[in-house]
Amino acid sequence: MYLENVISPADVKKLSIPELRTLADEMRTALIKKLSEHGGHIGPNLGMIEMTVALHYVFDSPKDKIIYDVSHQCYPHKMLTGRADAFLYPEHYDDVTGYTNPLESEHDFFTVGHTSTSVSLAAGLAVGRDRTGGCENIIAVIGDGSLSGGEALEALDYAGEYDKNLIIIVNDNDQSIAENHGGLYKSLKALRESNGESENNIFKSFGLDYKYLDDGHNIEKLIEIFSSVKDIQHPIVVHVHTIKGRGLAYAESDREAWHAGGPFNAEDGSRNYGGENDSDPVFESLKKLLDTNEKAVVLNAATPMGLGFTENVRPEYVKRGQFIDVGIAEENAMAMISGIAKNGGTPVFGTFAPFFQRTYDQLSHDLCLNDTPATFLVLMPGVYGMNSNTHIALCDIQFFSHVPNLIYLAPTSREEYMQMFKFATTQKNHPVGIRVPAYLPKTGIEDTTDYSVLNKSQIAVKGSYAAIIGVGSLFGLAKNVADEYKKQTGENITVINPKFLTGLDEELLESLKANHKLVITLEDGEVDGGFGQRVAGFYGDSSIKVKNFGLSKKFHTDFNADELLAEHGISVDKLVEYIKHSI
Amino acid sequence: MYLENVISPADVKKLSIPELRTLADEMRTALIKKLSEHGGHIGPNLGMIEMTVALHYVFDSPKDKIIYDVSHQCYPHKMLTGRADAFLYPEHYDDVTGYTNPLESEHDFFTVGHTSTSVSLAAGLAVGRDRTGGCENIIAVIGDGSLSGGEALEALDYAGEYDKNLIIIVNDNDQSIAENHGGLYKSLKALRESNGESENNIFKSFGLDYKYLDDGHNIEKLIEIFSSVKDIQHPIVVHVHTIKGRGLAYAESDREAWHAGGPFNAEDGSRNYGGENDSDPVFESLKKLLDTNEKAVVLNAATPMGLGFTENVRPEYVKRGQFIDVGIAEENAMAMISGIAKNGGTPVFGTFAPFFQRTYDQLSHDLCLNDTPATFLVLMPGVYGMNSNTHIALCDIQFFSHVPNLIYLAPTSREEYMQMFKFATTQKNHPVGIRVPAYLPKTGIEDTTDYSVLNKSQIAVKGSYAAIIGVGSLFGLAKNVADEYKKQTGENITVINPKFLTGLDEELLESLKANHKLVITLEDGEVDGGFGQRVAGFYGDSSIKVKNFGLSKKFHTDFNADELLAEHGISVDKLVEYIKHSI
Repeated sequence: MYLENVISPADVKKLSIPELRTLADEMRTALIKKLSEHGGHIGPNLGMIEMTVALHYVFDSPKDKIIYDVSHQCYPHKMLTGRADAFLYPEHYDDVTGYTNPLESEHDFFTVGHTSTSVSLAAGLAVGRDRTGGCENIIAVIGDGSLSGGEALEALDYAGEYDKNLIIIVNDNDQSIAENHGGLYKSLKALRESNGESENNIFKSFGLDYKYLDDGHNIEKLIEIFSSVKDIQHPIVVHVHTIKGRGLAYAESDREAWHAGGPFNAEDGSRNYGGENDSDPVFESLKKLLDTNEKAVVLNAATPMGLGFTENVRPEYVKRGQFIDVGIAEENAMAMISGIAKNGGTPVFGTFAPFFQRTYDQLSHDLCLNDTPATFLVLMPGVYGMNSNTHIALCDIQFFSHVPNLIYLAPTSREEYMQMFKFATTQKNHPVGIRVPAYLPKTGIEDTTDYSVLNKSQIAVKGSYAAIIGVGSLFGLAKNVADEYKKQTGENITVINPKFLTGLDEELLESLKANHKLVITLEDGEVDGGFGQRVAGFYGDSSIKVKNFGLSKKFHTDFNADELLAEHGISVDKLVEYIKHSI
Repeated sequence: MYLENVISPADVKKLSIPELRTLADEMRTALIKKLSEHGGHIGPNLGMIEMTVALHYVFDSPKDKIIYDVSHQCYPHKMLTGRADAFLYPEHYDDVTGYTNPLESEHDFFTVGHTSTSVSLAAGLAVGRDRTGGCENIIAVIGDGSLSGGEALEALDYAGEYDKNLIIIVNDNDQSIAENHGGLYKSLKALRESNGESENNIFKSFGLDYKYLDDGHNIEKLIEIFSSVKDIQHPIVVHVHTIKGRGLAYAESDREAWHAGGPFNAEDGSRNYGGENDSDPVFESLKKLLDTNEKAVVLNAATPMGLGFTENVRPEYVKRGQFIDVGIAEENAMAMISGIAKNGGTPVFGTFAPFFQRTYDQLSHDLCLNDTPATFLVLMPGVYGMNSNTHIALCDIQFFSHVPNLIYLAPTSREEYMQMFKFATTQKNHPVGIRVPAYLPKTGIEDTTDYSVLNKSQIAVKGSYAAIIGVGSLFGLAKNVADEYKKQTGENITVINPKFLTGLDEELLESLKANHKLVITLEDGEVDGGFGQRVAGFYGDSSIKVKNFGLSKKFHTDFNADELLAEHGISVDKLVEYIKHSI
């Protein structure tokens, strides 16, 4: 076996073309075995095997620097840069993360997980090289799905004016996570169908040099084309056509389903996700809206599955004009919903929480300054959401709560979510964001709250001495703390569900002064700049004591949510002790 | 005179072509008179007169909806939509804002001031129209300078897939504020030089239909081309070549200097800006860095003048590779500085505070997650910065302070700025942002602080009972409050300059507990989620009282800074009274 003897790219360079082909086969076999046992990104990595072999054969990493966009396609790169064991031996599977990671290897330059960043980062490396007298190759590897993001397009435009070595490899597999969207994909299709010769070449229109390779799984041709651009002294795009999921028939034929996932049966591609879950409240709410309000339209940015709009559900709503996937283009989606609402439509934009980080200017300037009644759904924020530092969203409250005119809501149950969604999509006064945690418990009791009365919190348990305000996912914990405290002391403490994160219920907070001495806030993200400090500010000149609990300011990663919370003093036992000791 | 009788676009439609030409001449004369007496955006509006006349002749505003990008070129539009008086009569000059404003007219659809938003907003209006059964034309007017912004490129890509009426007019005057940058401008140049026939058409490469008009000041031809696309049932780009500053010789010949400005002598273009100011500390710091460190490079995003790099200064540094204008592409600039620092360079990115709103994801994910030692300068934040709701930056502390790994510094004097800049550009540990107020007073005393000792605040005055923490621009006010308090009571109160906004000086704050009962925080932006609430959180479980002063959560606009602060209790008299009454 060649693979187990590849300690560094130098070992790749020693092999003949036939041996490289065998190496690629070994890599594919190892990848499929690990993925089927462990899960991970499937299609993107199977499509990058031959390209990665050729890259490390031609270029001299880590002197030459390869930057992978999103970096969820970096498994073959890790296999060839001293980390093959993590793909060969189950006991080492978790030695590596799913993304490039400078802490793992000198061949990785950035910790990344968001799309569309590679060309900018590579352009920066190139300028850094120019300033420090270096002469290495800088290579960005970007998938077609990532091209539509504003950061990538801005960077292609910059590269079109830059005048030194910068190699941009477009790994075109004609697929984002779902199908590609946007007019530029017509250009890519025309280029694929004309062997790179079609007119109105999107890359050339940005002023870039260009080469095309149709067979992105032919190692010999890949080596040839990469060799032809090595040490080139101007920016160039090398457009390579690959097949997502290459070598795994069911992944090749259903590219969306096999983009990523948990363990599966490698023989037949069957997957067992356990018993049926409850229906997804997000999908349920959106479907009902679209089916009952023809003015309604749902937008997403290349993550339709996050909203429950899977391949079999989407076509009908797309046909009706009620479901729009803008591709990876969150900025455009956030601005568009302002326009749609302004012209009488009822728009809802939803995507995963970390990707809202791209929309701040559109949120503030295009949406909230114009105070248009659009709705957006922030999926899986907080400590119970994603848990890699490449994808966390522990600062969504910081990010949204201070923006004027916005109403940002934190449901603590499925029923509250449903009522908040109904409020958001029927009112005509303000933009509304709803933070939708990964899990919303059912209470079994319909929520009939009138959310048009803004900033009204709910007292769930009436008590005295201490009050706990539990934001969103931590409201349940707050109730558990009160239960345990009562069990231990016989006394009730107050439990509050704030519901609104963009304003305090000042009347309620004021009323607590009568018979409370301590207010505790719990939030499932960073404490610095979060909800609790607003409460502390409110009580600052009173005699009420306030203690804010939340996470420390850090890019937390690979954590168990309950353990991380407990490390920050957020557990039933620790909080009960805190209250008892504060008396 | 036709102009004074134009109450609405209906009055434009009644005129013959020669009369329209006369109307345009009258508009130009009125514009030059108002601009010379009042100041404003000069070049952009002089270049849009004929186009605006033709737009209102052909389309039926407000049913047809025209969205102006940035909207600093909307003066001719205002003249033809019931607001001519504001351009004819000095006593009405201030009846209108410098941007589109739905509060002024039904012909204005959005309050906007940031670039690159028009195509997204127009696409949203178009989808809203589709959902509500409308049939109007939706027209985006975008300047070539705005095209390079990620939001605009994402929206062009979306438009390339969209399939109903959407008219995108590219007002191409071959100029941003300064000269254009980015490879796409090569495409625009080639299109201009080939009468729209050159290959690799950037718009067609996004899948869009396309028409070109070379003489963008010929009303007849403009009417012809707009009439040809009216009611078109798919998206189309109408690329129109115009001349920035058209009709004012000195503005045509120096387009950067005449983009915008204060009053001037219309006869000869002479301008009197009063006496020489002190040299700009930002320019001084950057020039010194570039002249002494060849690894250093300054980036800006189409606002070189904000950094003092005017037309006569730039060329030398551009030639050396030490000054890069990425065009309007803030996302790319923020990510690039991470790459530059990673590869050994010393990058500094600077632009105006509101435009950092576009960089949050790059700041968090590309820069701070990777903890690369890059520097950025946030120009003119806070209440003493810009004062239009289209351009304010009253939430920069909220935006930056919670991001892990970042050091965000608030100088209160020129000397502090210089020392902080030196620290930022010589340390190799973390990204550093410096908020640079519009005015930095000189102390005359060199700052020798070692800023590598993080989060150390400075006690400027030692006192007891009360302490005032004055952030950045309000540090001077804090000292004045202490002076006045002493004058009135004979007692010293403590005055603190926090310097660091990304962490509290916990040791110092702890020490105040010994002989203080009240801590007051002053900040020149929104109080909600700001610096003061962090202090309130720190003292929440102690007996120290905290009172946070800052602005309310609102898109404040057209304010006098001192008056706005006073309305929020921030003035020497009000604060002295507050302290006296709190005893």
